[in-house]
Amino acid sequence: MQEKMELLKSRIADIAHLSHAGAVLGWDQNTYMPPAGATGRGNQLAVISRVAHEWATAAEMGKLLTDLESYAAQLDPDSDDACLIKVSRRDYDIETRVPSQFVEEQSRTTSLAFSAWVEARQKSDFSIFLPHLEKVVELNQRFAAFFPEFEHPYDALLDQFEPGMKTEEVKAIFAALRPQQVELIKAIADQPEVDDSFLHQSFDEQKQWDFGVEVIRKFGYDFQRGRQDKAPHPFTTSFGLDDVRITTRIDPQFLNPMLFGSMHETGHALYNLGFSRSLENSGLDSGASLAVHESQSRLWENLVGRSMPFWQHFYPRLQEVFPQLTDVSLERFYKGINKVQPSLIRVEADEATYNLHIMLRLELEIAMLEGSLALKDLPQIWNQKMKDYLGVEPHNDADGILQDVHWSYGNLGYFSTYALGNLVSAQLWEKIQQDVTDLDDQIRQGRFENLLGWLRENVHRHGRKFEPQVLIERVTGSRIDPAPYMRYLNKKYGQIYGISE
Amino acid sequence: MQEKMELLKSRIADIAHLSHAGAVLGWDQNTYMPPAGATGRGNQLAVISRVAHEWATAAEMGKLLTDLESYAAQLDPDSDDACLIKVSRRDYDIETRVPSQFVEEQSRTTSLAFSAWVEARQKSDFSIFLPHLEKVVELNQRFAAFFPEFEHPYDALLDQFEPGMKTEEVKAIFAALRPQQVELIKAIADQPEVDDSFLHQSFDEQKQWDFGVEVIRKFGYDFQRGRQDKAPHPFTTSFGLDDVRITTRIDPQFLNPMLFGSMHETGHALYNLGFSRSLENSGLDSGASLAVHESQSRLWENLVGRSMPFWQHFYPRLQEVFPQLTDVSLERFYKGINKVQPSLIRVEADEATYNLHIMLRLELEIAMLEGSLALKDLPQIWNQKMKDYLGVEPHNDADGILQDVHWSYGNLGYFSTYALGNLVSAQLWEKIQQDVTDLDDQIRQGRFENLLGWLRENVHRHGRKFEPQVLIERVTGSRIDPAPYMRYLNKKYGQIYGISE
Repeated sequence: MQEKMELLKSRIADIAHLSHAGAVLGWDQNTYMPPAGATGRGNQLAVISRVAHEWATAAEMGKLLTDLESYAAQLDPDSDDACLIKVSRRDYDIETRVPSQFVEEQSRTTSLAFSAWVEARQKSDFSIFLPHLEKVVELNQRFAAFFPEFEHPYDALLDQFEPGMKTEEVKAIFAALRPQQVELIKAIADQPEVDDSFLHQSFDEQKQWDFGVEVIRKFGYDFQRGRQDKAPHPFTTSFGLDDVRITTRIDPQFLNPMLFGSMHETGHALYNLGFSRSLENSGLDSGASLAVHESQSRLWENLVGRSMPFWQHFYPRLQEVFPQLTDVSLERFYKGINKVQPSLIRVEADEATYNLHIMLRLELEIAMLEGSLALKDLPQIWNQKMKDYLGVEPHNDADGILQDVHWSYGNLGYFSTYALGNLVSAQLWEKIQQDVTDLDDQIRQGRFENLLGWLRENVHRHGRKFEPQVLIERVTGSRIDPAPYMRYLNKKYGQIYGISE
Repeated sequence: MQEKMELLKSRIADIAHLSHAGAVLGWDQNTYMPPAGATGRGNQLAVISRVAHEWATAAEMGKLLTDLESYAAQLDPDSDDACLIKVSRRDYDIETRVPSQFVEEQSRTTSLAFSAWVEARQKSDFSIFLPHLEKVVELNQRFAAFFPEFEHPYDALLDQFEPGMKTEEVKAIFAALRPQQVELIKAIADQPEVDDSFLHQSFDEQKQWDFGVEVIRKFGYDFQRGRQDKAPHPFTTSFGLDDVRITTRIDPQFLNPMLFGSMHETGHALYNLGFSRSLENSGLDSGASLAVHESQSRLWENLVGRSMPFWQHFYPRLQEVFPQLTDVSLERFYKGINKVQPSLIRVEADEATYNLHIMLRLELEIAMLEGSLALKDLPQIWNQKMKDYLGVEPHNDADGILQDVHWSYGNLGYFSTYALGNLVSAQLWEKIQQDVTDLDDQIRQGRFENLLGWLRENVHRHGRKFEPQVLIERVTGSRIDPAPYMRYLNKKYGQIYGISE
């Protein structure tokens, strides 16, 4: 059996090397590739995906996994090998259930859909994207039909990104969350507006870059095992355990994109750098789910990076780098970076309003998949919901229904993981503060090694060994739970806006 | 048959996409990869090479090529399809003759040899590299033995880089060349030394970069289809017809590396950007040989970039960018960048002495392959030959026997293509000047489109359709011939050094 286990690992490692190669190509595509390189890059990526898919769905792989089931049964179910066999079986069953022909059709459809979305967004005209969205929805309906065992077709979509998560559970979580967030936002709206005008002035690009690097080095990001580059839409990518790269975007007139963007991506990267060495190239060396991944990025960006202790340490340094902030007190700066204001664009939303953007999208996606709304009416429905949930209304499609790229990639079922990630970040934070009782003091001293150590020990090293809810329950004692996030929001924004609890 | 032809093309295109993917990984490795990424990168490249090799040597490929032979016989032998079948057959026969096991052994050996060479060079200690060089030589002997049809084993090595070229022919060319080059160098040595001290001062790195970009844009390098990055050892690489990238190195105290380096790599890149669109991803969209490739880089670097007409156009601009050159006349500058001085390092050698460095290496490589010298004696033999040919003697191994990386890559048989490239560049130049009679005037006006157009029409578009000597004879009327290069050297350096002819 040991031989078969080794063979399985070597087959999976080959697939891992190939997908890391594909990731390098994707990184280059989004950072340095000259414009005319796009067609060739598409061909290169298509060949790599095809080979990886062939290998992942090979009959030999299925036979190996079947042969190893009895072996797995004798192992400690938490052992690397037992988890590897279990997760690989799951991956294999999913990959083989979806016909290659479907994958190719999906690839062709989304390649066109993406170009159409770019044009539609530029022209702020939903009708350009509509026929492509129709195909994307149809493909997602057909995809869901490959998995008839799910209670709701949306479960099949969700399961790709958040293994084990059910639509009903997400709905229940959001139902508990929404009234509380709405109430908080209303209370904030009754208070005087916070001033953040000082964040909108000229900030030298190189100095922004250097300050960001200073921060993420302190977080523990290792430039021997990664690097940062510029990209219009920042992302994190991994080519294995020792090459995990981040990207950032710099706005010379606004400090936030670089500052919180770099911290956000570093949160993702620290997760990918923290998988146990024993899982290297095993297919388990990736995040447990998108929500867990997002919990890491949001934790460093928000719970650390928008906290008072963090800025007690870093603000004098920021003022040194940018003397234009000399007259802005720490207090004012802290309030400014935490300003709450319902707005149109999800990716620019603050912590208090962000999840409402997600809830809106979840409702729409479920209705789209069920066929219970006419896609052509989406812009109107979107705008109405924005008004209902956030009290703001887009004046055009570009700032409304067309703002996110995800549907053009062919993905439905993705958005809720962003909100779930916020919730998990607060759940973890409560637990960390119980275990590292002087964490705030450490952060005030610019020390993050105990925080990172805790995350590595409790979250990172396990990679994808456990289902996300199992992992979260092991660490925090409960499944995904909105209460800690609401406690966090209420306390923080109660203080900032002087709202009595 | 048309179907089989299409099938062949599609199989070859898949291999091309895969090797372009590998080239992206190689580019990243030499430009941006963080240090710890090396092991993973090795794994990724190994998997890609393995798959590409499997595809290239598949029995189906052999059968397709056999089936298509009768079809090829009916075609115009100069047609794309006829050339494709012929060249693919050649590639297939070579690839299948070398066992996979040998390729893996070679890969392991050279991976270790490279690390050893790096260490040996750092410590300037040949004994560290010696055991690895022994293995490299042995591997090359075994490689040559896979091709017993060659008259001399060195022919088998040469043939990889310079299809159709024979050791005897190279020896004859070099035998004709050497006394003439030695004579010229002696005559130069009798003249007063040229002053090039003004090239060795502080030159702002960004300004150097910008000036280089200005020049190569004028040459016709298209930044929509390529880009330039920094690399310690500059190179050109292609990911298809629409993404051909160059790299350069900037020395803040010396203008030449960036200036002539960027022009050199652009010469390579313009070749790769000029293959006929009809050859895209056919395997014929690469250079006819290393010598023909080098003829393109050397043509732009030397025959254009170190010429008087070029600097009549660009020198005022260079002086504007670098006011420290204000007091250096065009005449002095031109002599400075063409200074002849026998020196230890091949890559820094001037046009008049360069080929002698190559001749020395060819003699050593043939002797190594024949086993007619003891490898441990190489440093002494090297130093003695340097003294005999160039009148200079290395004081240590780093500047002598260890200066080139090529052997550590496992390559014997490569060096002579550099000298042959010089010869071809001058052959082409004589022909171009017959066809574009006012070329010097055009260059004086900073116009290169007719030059580039000529090269595209006569050389670039054919890619690898014809054997290099066939191509050169078609264009210039003769096989590789040292006479034009000697005419060029004697005229140019006769003027610069005031030597009467």
